[in-house]
Amino acid sequence: MSLVSPMTGDTRLGFDRKVTLPGPFLLESGQQLPTLDIGYETYGALAADGRNAILVCHALTMDQYVAGYNPRTGKPGWWPRLVGPGQPIDPERHFIICANVLGGCSGSSGPGSINPATGERFAMSFPVITIRDMVRAQAALLDHLGVGVLQAVIGGSMGGMQALDWAVAFPDRVRSVVAIASAARHSAQNIAFHEVGRQAIMADPVWAAGNYAPDLPPASGLAVARMAAHITYLSESGLMERFGRRLQNRDALGFGFDADFQVESYLRHQGLAFVERFDANSYLYITRAMDYFDLAEPHGGQLAAAFAGSKTRFAIISFTTDWLYPTAESKRIVRALNAAGAAVSFVELESPHGHDAFLLEAPEMNRVVDGFLRAGA
Amino acid sequence: MSLVSPMTGDTRLGFDRKVTLPGPFLLESGQQLPTLDIGYETYGALAADGRNAILVCHALTMDQYVAGYNPRTGKPGWWPRLVGPGQPIDPERHFIICANVLGGCSGSSGPGSINPATGERFAMSFPVITIRDMVRAQAALLDHLGVGVLQAVIGGSMGGMQALDWAVAFPDRVRSVVAIASAARHSAQNIAFHEVGRQAIMADPVWAAGNYAPDLPPASGLAVARMAAHITYLSESGLMERFGRRLQNRDALGFGFDADFQVESYLRHQGLAFVERFDANSYLYITRAMDYFDLAEPHGGQLAAAFAGSKTRFAIISFTTDWLYPTAESKRIVRALNAAGAAVSFVELESPHGHDAFLLEAPEMNRVVDGFLRAGA
Repeated sequence: MSLVSPMTGDTRLGFDRKVTLPGPFLLESGQQLPTLDIGYETYGALAADGRNAILVCHALTMDQYVAGYNPRTGKPGWWPRLVGPGQPIDPERHFIICANVLGGCSGSSGPGSINPATGERFAMSFPVITIRDMVRAQAALLDHLGVGVLQAVIGGSMGGMQALDWAVAFPDRVRSVVAIASAARHSAQNIAFHEVGRQAIMADPVWAAGNYAPDLPPASGLAVARMAAHITYLSESGLMERFGRRLQNRDALGFGFDADFQVESYLRHQGLAFVERFDANSYLYITRAMDYFDLAEPHGGQLAAAFAGSKTRFAIISFTTDWLYPTAESKRIVRALNAAGAAVSFVELESPHGHDAFLLEAPEMNRVVDGFLRAGA
Repeated sequence: MSLVSPMTGDTRLGFDRKVTLPGPFLLESGQQLPTLDIGYETYGALAADGRNAILVCHALTMDQYVAGYNPRTGKPGWWPRLVGPGQPIDPERHFIICANVLGGCSGSSGPGSINPATGERFAMSFPVITIRDMVRAQAALLDHLGVGVLQAVIGGSMGGMQALDWAVAFPDRVRSVVAIASAARHSAQNIAFHEVGRQAIMADPVWAAGNYAPDLPPASGLAVARMAAHITYLSESGLMERFGRRLQNRDALGFGFDADFQVESYLRHQGLAFVERFDANSYLYITRAMDYFDLAEPHGGQLAAAFAGSKTRFAIISFTTDWLYPTAESKRIVRALNAAGAAVSFVELESPHGHDAFLLEAPEMNRVVDGFLRAGA
């Protein structure tokens, strides 16, 4: 797959980049990081007029490997259906940037980073971060890359939260926002599911208050956290259609506690596979950042006030069977944007796949994103 | 609260009874129990014509203390709104029986029982049981109490599953069935949530393959299991209304991992309180029994065939915001009963409280149950 690697010899650009930006990097909590590491990738080239830069923001457990090849998993990137040659976000036309979020575990500063003051991993001494902190870290990366105004910021789920926050934090620096299967705040139910996951991790004695050895992570707790979360990414009807009550490798009930049903076996696999690719402490920090997210909070609960005077264009997309970030939350954003006089298009797409729909084959989503980006190019 | 304790001196009747029925008690798995312990309560007196007996079946984590006083918690029973003087199920008019389910931890045979063959607790050597096994244990109790045909079997959630199964297992022994917030099978999503809970328990090293000391249970794992389950008992809107994003004992975000939000604090409390009153191994066995439940399975997936020729009257009740056993599952039962030519009334009640609605103040539910029971008395 050609992602139009730059021929400039500019080592800032290309696959699997990492930069350490000088600090201190001040956080919303009032704490600061001594320096700021960012793992990222770029595809395509910045146009002479600088107007073709698109920032892709990733969801909770994703990373900077949005297209192309993920060197950690040996698998393709996580959004090849939307980002790549011939796709709506196309390295032939766009300069594409995707960065691992602050707090993550794929090259950016997070609880797994070494604290220069101690020479040890931060672990739980890493400061609590927010979606705004993630966005400000991305802005610092853009400064480093020489990108001024973005043509667009796009993301699904937590990526959509970052995209929305970009329009609030840097209104003059983003011309278009695409927020897919997302929300402007975390609901009580969203917080509750995250809290279950955190408690599962913290209940694992191997977690040891965050001070586990990197090669001996709290696998049991993290797997349970992932299993609980994974259910919320799928729809009830999708689960029923895909697994129903079908048995796993047997003809009759086993009358035991092995995985009798395919859905059990699938969930256990999801839990175990996740442990291979994600850090437990990062899971704690990033879920916390999502729980803290509420764009209306600094404005007395008035979401429209957060977008007051916005010149940014917005595309808000939801999916019919997404019960994690349901259409009602997207409509709440749309109402607020309308009230703020912002340009917004909204579409609810049919899908049986629940929240995960945004990552799957979704031709309609591609058409909507493509049309929206071309109209604002 | 007067529950009309019998004046007969019959020690089989009354509060907080326990009986050991001679075995062997054959189970659906083909295994058997040497004897059958049942913890139960009765209220009221059997009429001379024997036609006023009502069996109340409890849900996953409940027990035989449906009305009156729970000697284990020191609190009132779990369904005082439906069972008690002046309520639709009234000890002045009905002979009421409620038994702890087989597999439970409140007096009935379960993994915490002593295996007479070894003198040790069964723990995970207890055979896997099913809803049908629970129902057959209840039938054995009725034999012991001299109750032939039941006026009604009633239950919510897993209690509703037992009630439905009564009509299939003992069609000549039950005149009416009331199944509230229930289902005729466990869906893939239902199984998935249970599997998360089981994995959380089994991931707790204190669980020790089930061989924990009774006074040193796998509290962390069981609490996480309860937290995950508890979210499914409430509606998203109910959680938002009750807790929203309100902070716990503070004015601003704490930027830490303590319970910042009220919903976190509430969930943690639910988890901890549950550990005090429920056994982890029982949780494994009873969730497994629910997962195995599918009335249509022995009939090639044709639910109507399970009820073929049924003379029993049915009342099926669902709640608008119950996403654990949604109205669609109740309607599936109603369609099958109609196809089987059975007498069935169905009502979906408005409630903001999700699955838990059946346990809460629900005047409409009371009117429906009262009318249904009186019509068939």
